[in-house]
Amino acid sequence: MTEKASFSSSPSEPFTKGLVQVFTGDGRGKTTAALGTVIRALGHGLRVYIVYFMKGSYPYGERNILSKLPNVNMASFGSLEFVDPANVKPEEKEQARQALAAAREAMLSGNYDLVVLDEVNLAAAWKLVELDEVVRLITDKPQNVELILTGRQADTKLVQVADLVTEMLKIKHPYDKEIIARKGIEY
Amino acid sequence: MTEKASFSSSPSEPFTKGLVQVFTGDGRGKTTAALGTVIRALGHGLRVYIVYFMKGSYPYGERNILSKLPNVNMASFGSLEFVDPANVKPEEKEQARQALAAAREAMLSGNYDLVVLDEVNLAAAWKLVELDEVVRLITDKPQNVELILTGRQADTKLVQVADLVTEMLKIKHPYDKEIIARKGIEY
Repeated sequence: MTEKASFSSSPSEPFTKGLVQVFTGDGRGKTTAALGTVIRALGHGLRVYIVYFMKGSYPYGERNILSKLPNVNMASFGSLEFVDPANVKPEEKEQARQALAAAREAMLSGNYDLVVLDEVNLAAAWKLVELDEVVRLITDKPQNVELILTGRQADTKLVQVADLVTEMLKIKHPYDKEIIARKGIEY
Repeated sequence: MTEKASFSSSPSEPFTKGLVQVFTGDGRGKTTAALGTVIRALGHGLRVYIVYFMKGSYPYGERNILSKLPNVNMASFGSLEFVDPANVKPEEKEQARQALAAAREAMLSGNYDLVVLDEVNLAAAWKLVELDEVVRLITDKPQNVELILTGRQADTKLVQVADLVTEMLKIKHPYDKEIIARKGIEY
C-alpha cells in the first residue's frame, strides 16, 4: 500500500475525490469493514454519518462506542424484527424510504465526508427501496463525499456505478457447525 | 442473524467459546473488518489486544481513536518500510517473532477476551514467522479467548484450524483506475 495521499494532510480536509465503496457477499465482515473504515476516518478528523437500514434501534455494541465519539451521527430505520422478503410490509418500505432520504440529505448537506448506508444492498434486493433510487443517490453524490454501501445481494447496477466493490466470501463459517451468534462479535 | 447469544448478557462476561476468525483475500476490508469487530467488542465491555505485524508504529487513523478508548491495548512491530518477500531481512524476522510472542502472551494472560493479529497471515506466507508457530498459537488458545488473524495469502493450514474464514474478494478496485491511496480511508 502506498503512503501517498491524494489530498492535503490537514485532518479536517474533505476528500478531493470521494469514492463509492460496496461491501457485499454472504461472508462476514461487511458491516464491520464499514465500521472499521468509520473509525479510521474519524481518527483523521473526518465527519461521518451512518444510516442503518432494517436494523431497528441498532442495539449493537458499536453504538456504545460511536455515541461517545465526536463527528459521527447515526440514524436507524426499520424494526428489529426480521423482514420477510416474500411478504414485505408497507411500513417496512416506508422505513427504508425514510432511511434513503436521510442518507441523501446527509450526503448533500455538506456536513459529512463519509456516509455509510448499512444493509442498503439487501434493502434494494428485497425491494424495500427502489434500486433506481439507490443508483440515483450514487450518481448525485458530491465529489468530495465518500459513500459506503453494505449488504448481501448487491445488484449488478450498484456494482457498475461503484468505484470499489469487495465480495466477502464465506470460506468457512461456525454457523455451519451450529454455533449461534454471540454478543460482542456477531452483533 | 439470530439475536440469541451463547453467553450471559453481563457486559464483562468473557466468551464461553471464543472462535478463531481469519480474514484473507486480495480485496479490501480485512483489517477494517477486524477493527470494526474490535469496536463492537469494546462496546460490550470486552477487553481487546491488537498486534500489528509489519506495520511499524501504525500511524493510522484508528490509533487516534483506539488510544482514547478503555479496555484496548495495541503493540506494533516491524518497520514502516515495505518488506521484500524475496529478500527478508533478519531484523524483520526478529520483529515478527516478537509480534507473535506478544500475541501469545496476551492470549494466555487472562487479561483479554479478543486478540487481533493484524497481517499475520502474510507474515507467515512470507516466512517472517514460522507457519507452524502460528498454528501452535491457535491450538494453544484458551477456550474463552477469541482470535482474529488478518492478511492476504492465509495458508490452508490456518484455514483448517480456524473456525470462521472469510475471503475478501476484489470485484472492482479503484487502484485499477490509478487512484492512489487516500488518508482516512485506505490507511
